[in-house]
Amino acid sequence: MNYQRFLEEAIDQVHAERRYRVFADLERIVGKFPRAIWRANGKAEEITVWCSNDYLGMGQHPDVVAAMQQAAGNMGTGAGGTRNISGNNHPLVELEHELADLHGKEAGLVFTSGFVSNEAAISTIGRLLPNCLILSDELNHASMIEGVRRSGAEKKVFRHNDVAHLESLLQAAGRERAKLIVFESVYSMDGDIAPIAEIADLAEKYNAMTYIDEVHAVGMYGGRGGGITEREGLAHRIDIIEGTLAKAFGTLGGYITGTRSVIDAVRSYAPGFIFTTALPPSIAAAATASIRHLKTSQAERDAQQRQATHTKQVLADAGLPVMESATHIVPILVGDPELCKMASDRLLGVHGIYIQPINYPTVPRGTERLRVTPTPFHSDALIAELKAALVETWNALGIPYRTEGHTEVPKSERIVSLLVPQSGG
Amino acid sequence: MNYQRFLEEAIDQVHAERRYRVFADLERIVGKFPRAIWRANGKAEEITVWCSNDYLGMGQHPDVVAAMQQAAGNMGTGAGGTRNISGNNHPLVELEHELADLHGKEAGLVFTSGFVSNEAAISTIGRLLPNCLILSDELNHASMIEGVRRSGAEKKVFRHNDVAHLESLLQAAGRERAKLIVFESVYSMDGDIAPIAEIADLAEKYNAMTYIDEVHAVGMYGGRGGGITEREGLAHRIDIIEGTLAKAFGTLGGYITGTRSVIDAVRSYAPGFIFTTALPPSIAAAATASIRHLKTSQAERDAQQRQATHTKQVLADAGLPVMESATHIVPILVGDPELCKMASDRLLGVHGIYIQPINYPTVPRGTERLRVTPTPFHSDALIAELKAALVETWNALGIPYRTEGHTEVPKSERIVSLLVPQSGG
Repeated sequence: MNYQRFLEEAIDQVHAERRYRVFADLERIVGKFPRAIWRANGKAEEITVWCSNDYLGMGQHPDVVAAMQQAAGNMGTGAGGTRNISGNNHPLVELEHELADLHGKEAGLVFTSGFVSNEAAISTIGRLLPNCLILSDELNHASMIEGVRRSGAEKKVFRHNDVAHLESLLQAAGRERAKLIVFESVYSMDGDIAPIAEIADLAEKYNAMTYIDEVHAVGMYGGRGGGITEREGLAHRIDIIEGTLAKAFGTLGGYITGTRSVIDAVRSYAPGFIFTTALPPSIAAAATASIRHLKTSQAERDAQQRQATHTKQVLADAGLPVMESATHIVPILVGDPELCKMASDRLLGVHGIYIQPINYPTVPRGTERLRVTPTPFHSDALIAELKAALVETWNALGIPYRTEGHTEVPKSERIVSLLVPQSGG
Repeated sequence: MNYQRFLEEAIDQVHAERRYRVFADLERIVGKFPRAIWRANGKAEEITVWCSNDYLGMGQHPDVVAAMQQAAGNMGTGAGGTRNISGNNHPLVELEHELADLHGKEAGLVFTSGFVSNEAAISTIGRLLPNCLILSDELNHASMIEGVRRSGAEKKVFRHNDVAHLESLLQAAGRERAKLIVFESVYSMDGDIAPIAEIADLAEKYNAMTYIDEVHAVGMYGGRGGGITEREGLAHRIDIIEGTLAKAFGTLGGYITGTRSVIDAVRSYAPGFIFTTALPPSIAAAATASIRHLKTSQAERDAQQRQATHTKQVLADAGLPVMESATHIVPILVGDPELCKMASDRLLGVHGIYIQPINYPTVPRGTERLRVTPTPFHSDALIAELKAALVETWNALGIPYRTEGHTEVPKSERIVSLLVPQSGG
């Protein structure tokens, strides 16, 4: 047994599949968002980030930064323990109240990441309910798939956003069996939205619990940033709403909200929650400041939608293959993994524009893409620069332009396996 | 199917087993460590925390607080993405270099928690190595047990710190089979230390990989805070050293260090790493400041050992049943779950001293205990107060005093299951 050789072969395999990741070394600049310093080959230069999940630039908001600094100054840099053993800090308690209020739920529970929140919550609920059947959208995120897998429950995958398919599975299971429907509101790679009302109708009809992932929607949709469920007046019809503090809210961590019982059950039974150090007070305080700001300020949401719409229009007018998207996410089709990687490298190296390539298995083969996320701070001038850089890159590499209208591509199940490295993430 | 009722019954079960957790609402006070504000029943009062895992009080260190504040001011409150998609911030790159240097390894990899680092690293390595056999100490932490389980690999549990038992298992597996030995340096509930040299000898003899969890040792042992492996000059003989940034280093997150290949393999294959937002620059900068300080300053380690020794002596002199411990951890035997909870409640309510009860299944039944962690900031005066409070509590509740010498209790495997809620954590 030669351990070194086996590990090297595993890495060689990732290289061979052209999916080896090199992380860009970035230093964001408060006050100059979305600009950042990029370090490579001993040099440092300023570039524009076009693929950040700090969707509203709240990580740079003066109130949010001040909340973090003040909490660190008053309470220190860490929590000092798990929630149960001396780590349950007051700002975290306040944050959970804020989140419950945001979604109109009885209670909230914060985790150190969105990944852990999905994994811990879904696996715990699926395990606590006797003979539970989990119905999972085929495009669900890796963290949800892990949660389903770890629940030990039987799983049925329904075709993406296909309520007829979902209904046939619910019908086959019957009203009496415990059922949990897990899905997302905004699917982050395509930017499309789930038929939440229809899924809620089905859940009611067949007596199923519902679990929605709103990580790409909280802060950005709904009058107070409660996500698509708030915008569509459906929050009260979904049992568990999961979200993140690490995207539009600009900090770190994930959470769930729901009835007191469901939150208490996850809190009491999930090892990934129980045995983990609590989020520091500084992170909790910053997240609360961000949520509170976005509960009353519509300016960021409006500006984001305006700049996203403008970006789509400008790129489409230039003939670039902008894929259909109902949200702030702007995917641009490349359709080939090598070209996608080359386009990303050229944009960064030649144009100082940073957009990660999105390849299989995060998206189906043949639909490799660049995924652009305009924020309120991506000005019209930056959008014009982006268009020029993309056109130059498309021409230089011979990537196909759009043929007619918006570009539609087939969606199919992303395969997520521990042994198949992911291109996303 | 009545979902609400099933969830309520699950919670009732935790209540019935007297293991329902109520999290104390605490606000730590920079400059007054280990004092904190405790909120309960509409009141707020100042108490002394005696069970913090901020073992050296570094979460309050001026350099560490300043590093967090400065990074937040310069780079914002969040990372804005996963490591691969725009979240790989410069302070995090520096932190990984610092950690590799701390343990004399080629590379390091940071996770959002120690739980995730164990789970992701052990499960990934165990899965990548063909037909791997994992040999796991029976007292390993829940996060390691989860990692072993999720690897899908065959597991053999060896009796706690029993090298003869471990050898018999290694021998049975043979030199050719892939084998991973996973163990801790300091076991946090008993405070005892693994026979690392003997385990390294066996690993060499039988050609096994070794994985050590040093979360309760990093920062506190070794000339530069590299843990027990550094203190005993054994770091180079262990393949993977795992640690935390959330205990002695006073911030948040976990990490592994090892050869470039093993780190690259985990980095490339672990979904729990790939699909998670990176730690914010402010956390990374604070952690680096803390590690750097403890690499050159011996004062905190000396003071911690001095105060821990003094605490053991003072409590033992008072006849309290202090359990044997080779480290800074001071367990005090209660031996009954109800009494343990009552003692904890009385200490907090009557004496303003906060120590969580540690009950089954975190520790075997009949060995329920209070687990005290003296820091450099627990002065002789605070130790005297602790002694008086414990004696009053022991008398009031009729808890048995020590009979002779140090108190020894049997150690047995802690059962960790998703459906058996843990008392620890």
